[in-house]
Amino acid sequence: MSESAETIGEIGEGATLARIFPLLPASARTVIGPGDDCAVVTVPDGRVPLTTDLMIEGPDFIIGLSTGFDIGWKACATNLADIAAMGATPTALVVGLAAPASTTVSFVEDIARGFRDAAAALAPGCGVVGGDLSHGPVVMVAVTATGEFDGVEPVTRSGAAIGNLVAVAGELGAAKRGLDLLLAGAFGADGTPDRDAVDALWESNPHDVAAQLRPSPPIGLGVVAARAGATAMMDISDGLVLDARRIATASGVAIDFDLAAVGSLDALTGGEDHSLLACFPPLATIPKGFRVIGRVAPGDGVRVDGVPFDARGGWDPFSDYSAESQ
Amino acid sequence: MSESAETIGEIGEGATLARIFPLLPASARTVIGPGDDCAVVTVPDGRVPLTTDLMIEGPDFIIGLSTGFDIGWKACATNLADIAAMGATPTALVVGLAAPASTTVSFVEDIARGFRDAAAALAPGCGVVGGDLSHGPVVMVAVTATGEFDGVEPVTRSGAAIGNLVAVAGELGAAKRGLDLLLAGAFGADGTPDRDAVDALWESNPHDVAAQLRPSPPIGLGVVAARAGATAMMDISDGLVLDARRIATASGVAIDFDLAAVGSLDALTGGEDHSLLACFPPLATIPKGFRVIGRVAPGDGVRVDGVPFDARGGWDPFSDYSAESQ
Repeated sequence: MSESAETIGEIGEGATLARIFPLLPASARTVIGPGDDCAVVTVPDGRVPLTTDLMIEGPDFIIGLSTGFDIGWKACATNLADIAAMGATPTALVVGLAAPASTTVSFVEDIARGFRDAAAALAPGCGVVGGDLSHGPVVMVAVTATGEFDGVEPVTRSGAAIGNLVAVAGELGAAKRGLDLLLAGAFGADGTPDRDAVDALWESNPHDVAAQLRPSPPIGLGVVAARAGATAMMDISDGLVLDARRIATASGVAIDFDLAAVGSLDALTGGEDHSLLACFPPLATIPKGFRVIGRVAPGDGVRVDGVPFDARGGWDPFSDYSAESQ
Repeated sequence: MSESAETIGEIGEGATLARIFPLLPASARTVIGPGDDCAVVTVPDGRVPLTTDLMIEGPDFIIGLSTGFDIGWKACATNLADIAAMGATPTALVVGLAAPASTTVSFVEDIARGFRDAAAALAPGCGVVGGDLSHGPVVMVAVTATGEFDGVEPVTRSGAAIGNLVAVAGELGAAKRGLDLLLAGAFGADGTPDRDAVDALWESNPHDVAAQLRPSPPIGLGVVAARAGATAMMDISDGLVLDARRIATASGVAIDFDLAAVGSLDALTGGEDHSLLACFPPLATIPKGFRVIGRVAPGDGVRVDGVPFDARGGWDPFSDYSAESQ
């Protein structure tokens, strides 16, 4: 990825930070940026959304399948999606990065570039305002994102009402297809990632591989959905059915999907698309970018074409991942 | 620590979270708490401080020296100190926790109790509003804290002016003494922590051991210093000299410490006290709880009794820690 084999252990924390800072995206809301005890950002609305996520080498990504750039992009995109799913506009991120001392500086710079390009592409004006760099046994990226509501009420998971239309913006199942492609075809005979094989998959299946490694959720549609009257919204991180069940439970209703509109069984259970799942009143104008895939009904849980769908789907970091089995 | 050997791998993410939620401190500023895509907290002032820190098993704590409660307490206290050091009042935390599947549920509950008790003791009204739980090869706690300025201007590192008095609130060197005691006396013949030895050190040296394992920085004095006119402030995480040098550099001045007032050479270099170091105009009334230990002078760097103090001091997670050497 880079000709430089200089490691962060060799140059230390301060010099590594000096290399990263110029690469990070700036926030239009910055009062005080990186380098003090805290960053300070403005919150014109008086209410601030906060979300945090860990991305850890092993359960969340495999170095070699993902480049540093991919890791930064995805860590950025997934946290932006959580802000968008509240109906807010992302404004600022703080990023904690832990890595072994043998990690190359260029790898860390690539992570910073991933944040920069994802923020520019998905949420222009949102930037990294602070962070922490530490020593860990594997690469871990801890991101906290914030944003602003600009007068719109936060859209939670608990407001779905019977008769609401259920709509989605973004991919369904593509990230899972990309993961399956990578797991099946990107490892060499020795069980380690083969970069040439990864590159070949990028070429043959760019859409699905990108959905897995560099997802592009429709961040700007979060506030659009809120303005259109969305009653409940979330981003689909763990799979459509599993996440829809969370809205159903929080709202005390059932959600009934139309399989033909959803597209495929895979689209019901594949996770990591970070698409936006939203409920709208029956008379609302569904915003451009959303497509209706179901309806809110009396009862509980998730149904597909009227039949209860009890397959678990989704992902649990403990039951679905074992370091020992890798 | 607990009779239960139930692990988080056995009960999974959802059940673990259900056990943790009731233990977490609540925030008085919560609009939306844990369980949605984001938490939402109010920010009456329109400006929000953000700080994030990673605490990682190995470089930052050793399980056996630290209990789960100690880890939660310290992760909470150190992030509160960063908010206080801006002159703000901490209001809310989001917490990412990664741990091996073999981690007991009771250990994770103890971490939550540490957050609860530290928040109650150091920043009443501040609470945990969200988080993430994931699988990692070691225990890692990623905390992001926010707060409110309540009309006070943020106090950065760059405002120290020649003639200012330099004052500190809190311990100097106690956390380092506690660490030295633990490193020298808390390990058994096999090189692993000996809980009985740790308990004996707690009994014989409660002040210094607490300063290291459960620090109690004077969080409430941050906003007090800001109201008293503090021109620059930071929390001393990496040692008095190293952190004072950061203020000196950011402000374009020198800081001259009075060794008799500082108390000892150890107090100059020992890190992790998270005390508040602040500069005040010469005519300011130094708030109760602060003691004057030096003065801002022309020049650069840090001096002690007028003599440049160039010893590095402080801590770098890469050059000062090697997993291989542990």
